[in-house]
Amino acid sequence: MQTRAAVAWEAKKPLTIETVSLDGPGPGEVLVEIMATGVCHTDAYTLSGLDSEGKFPAILGHEGAGIVREVGAGVTSVRVGDHVIPLYTPECRQCKTCLSRRSNLCTSIRSTQGQGLMPDGTSRFACEGDTVFHYMGCSTFSNFTVLPEIAVAKVREDAPFEKICYIGCGVTTGIGAVVYTAKVWPGANVVVFGLGGIGLNVIQGARMVGADKIIGVDLNPAKAEMARRFGMTHFVNPDEVGRDKVVQAIVDLTGGGADFSFECIGNVHTMRQALECCHRGWGESIIIGVAPSGTEISTRPFQLVTGRVWKGSAFGGARGRTDVPKIVDWYMDGKIEIDPLITHVMPLEEINTAFELMEKGESIRSVVVF
Amino acid sequence: MQTRAAVAWEAKKPLTIETVSLDGPGPGEVLVEIMATGVCHTDAYTLSGLDSEGKFPAILGHEGAGIVREVGAGVTSVRVGDHVIPLYTPECRQCKTCLSRRSNLCTSIRSTQGQGLMPDGTSRFACEGDTVFHYMGCSTFSNFTVLPEIAVAKVREDAPFEKICYIGCGVTTGIGAVVYTAKVWPGANVVVFGLGGIGLNVIQGARMVGADKIIGVDLNPAKAEMARRFGMTHFVNPDEVGRDKVVQAIVDLTGGGADFSFECIGNVHTMRQALECCHRGWGESIIIGVAPSGTEISTRPFQLVTGRVWKGSAFGGARGRTDVPKIVDWYMDGKIEIDPLITHVMPLEEINTAFELMEKGESIRSVVVF
Repeated sequence: MQTRAAVAWEAKKPLTIETVSLDGPGPGEVLVEIMATGVCHTDAYTLSGLDSEGKFPAILGHEGAGIVREVGAGVTSVRVGDHVIPLYTPECRQCKTCLSRRSNLCTSIRSTQGQGLMPDGTSRFACEGDTVFHYMGCSTFSNFTVLPEIAVAKVREDAPFEKICYIGCGVTTGIGAVVYTAKVWPGANVVVFGLGGIGLNVIQGARMVGADKIIGVDLNPAKAEMARRFGMTHFVNPDEVGRDKVVQAIVDLTGGGADFSFECIGNVHTMRQALECCHRGWGESIIIGVAPSGTEISTRPFQLVTGRVWKGSAFGGARGRTDVPKIVDWYMDGKIEIDPLITHVMPLEEINTAFELMEKGESIRSVVVF
Repeated sequence: MQTRAAVAWEAKKPLTIETVSLDGPGPGEVLVEIMATGVCHTDAYTLSGLDSEGKFPAILGHEGAGIVREVGAGVTSVRVGDHVIPLYTPECRQCKTCLSRRSNLCTSIRSTQGQGLMPDGTSRFACEGDTVFHYMGCSTFSNFTVLPEIAVAKVREDAPFEKICYIGCGVTTGIGAVVYTAKVWPGANVVVFGLGGIGLNVIQGARMVGADKIIGVDLNPAKAEMARRFGMTHFVNPDEVGRDKVVQAIVDLTGGGADFSFECIGNVHTMRQALECCHRGWGESIIIGVAPSGTEISTRPFQLVTGRVWKGSAFGGARGRTDVPKIVDWYMDGKIEIDPLITHVMPLEEINTAFELMEKGESIRSVVVF
């Protein structure tokens, strides 16, 4: 079949809208019509050429929502017409990691996904005679895409695509880190470094589970207003308290240190601050942000020996098929907000504008509708 | 009263045996006759002058066992005649940390203990007109010593002092890290960096809880024999596999990485290896060793974002009054071994020999009996 898609022909170049050929679903696969997709920093990172695994030409996009239009042989968990969110972290429920019950990082199709291919080692996209690679197993910048059955989460049909697509990455990454990775308890003191889209979702996750103090840290005071709306109770501006006094300011605010901290920036210096502002004895710091290639985190081992814990979170520790539908429910039940985070909506033809808005810091999330 | 004690008059000098004056127990305190005490690396570290908190003159020693000989006003949890193990990590059961139920690092007397003083801000030891400081709240190199009630663990009376004194530090540090900090599960694959006294106790702790592979890492192949006796199933010599290939060797041996690793050396480079040899998704690395002052651990944040956890353990995560008596039971019940680890026993007058044996690596543990 043919489908409209935004193609990234090479790094650092704007996407172009093309008519792309798409081979239908093989055994265990489904064809999904993407109805809406968010544009995420990770797409921009790959497009920038800094992603060593980035392959071109490719159809980017990994934060979508759509409808199953065709299923391949042997597909049992979804049917034609089901509403789904594509999963860049699949959930096969059969690999060592899924069966460990200790991690969401399903490994069943990791190797081919990292190469921009479907599990059978082929690409299903082609354009003007060129093979076009898949991206993060999703390629949601295409109106139609093919996905393994294990890489779609079936969700309720009354949820609006242009909102719940954000659950395909950003919302789950932030809220999941609170709920699944950290398991923040009611009454905990929580610190969030970076008040972008991920940080805001961490904040509302902390509010949802009943955190006490929710302290936001950001150099940009303009971000405090939205953060307060999402549940932030205290704001620390490193330029006001002194950049080398952020840890002490948080220790003072929390009467000894944070129970949990979340780094949502991707800066190894704030990752260290996030660890060291945690409470002696039990404070846990969770790294969410993606640091530049080659950079390293460091601290004195004494920080850990005296009881702090350093961990990380990918896709919020959420199991895609099991947990993503629950997060959709939380949105529909009003436990979490998404609408104010989606600051821009545009047609596929204007997708490059979404990248520009993100780069300028003018959007929280832009969503493309097909 | 007067008591015999080994006094450290200044850094880097041998201890001398003195008759020291000791003020009896105040309210909430007990007088303990020390029957046996281990000599630990931490004593040697302080005696070396590298410990920035080290104060002189002092009576070192923190790994003892003895009998309560007198109790101060208001003491309710122990009586004269009780057998006890002094606790450098007390357990008040009332401070924020004890009540958190998430840490053993009771803070109730931390500030005075760090200054070499009793909780009322005084020292009870004097010699030749000089105040002599307490050490780690214990000073077990004295035949009699005064301790807060909250800093003694009451233990069964049929347990031999010259063996269970080791539970006052080394045994609990190793076994506790497995049982209380890491909570190693049956069937887990465990890696232990450093096969000294702590490493051997980690190994037998892992055996006790039913670990599957127990892999020891040490540059000295002579240490493998005792480690095997304590439960080690595989030995990795970094000089044989290549010092930069230790992580890969462990990943290969475990089919993907360790479920738990323990660093028992105090070297920031092996701390990094210990983290990075852990299994993607859930592997936890626990730092036990004390690194030189000013050194730092580092890694790529990707190691944590993909599911590894970095933590530390002090006194094995054990609550002194609650857990130490259980470990004594485990020894008496034959669940753990101590006897082969106590390679030397000597009278107080020969305590400097214990330091020499340790420095030369000729002892696992020397015990001084009074």
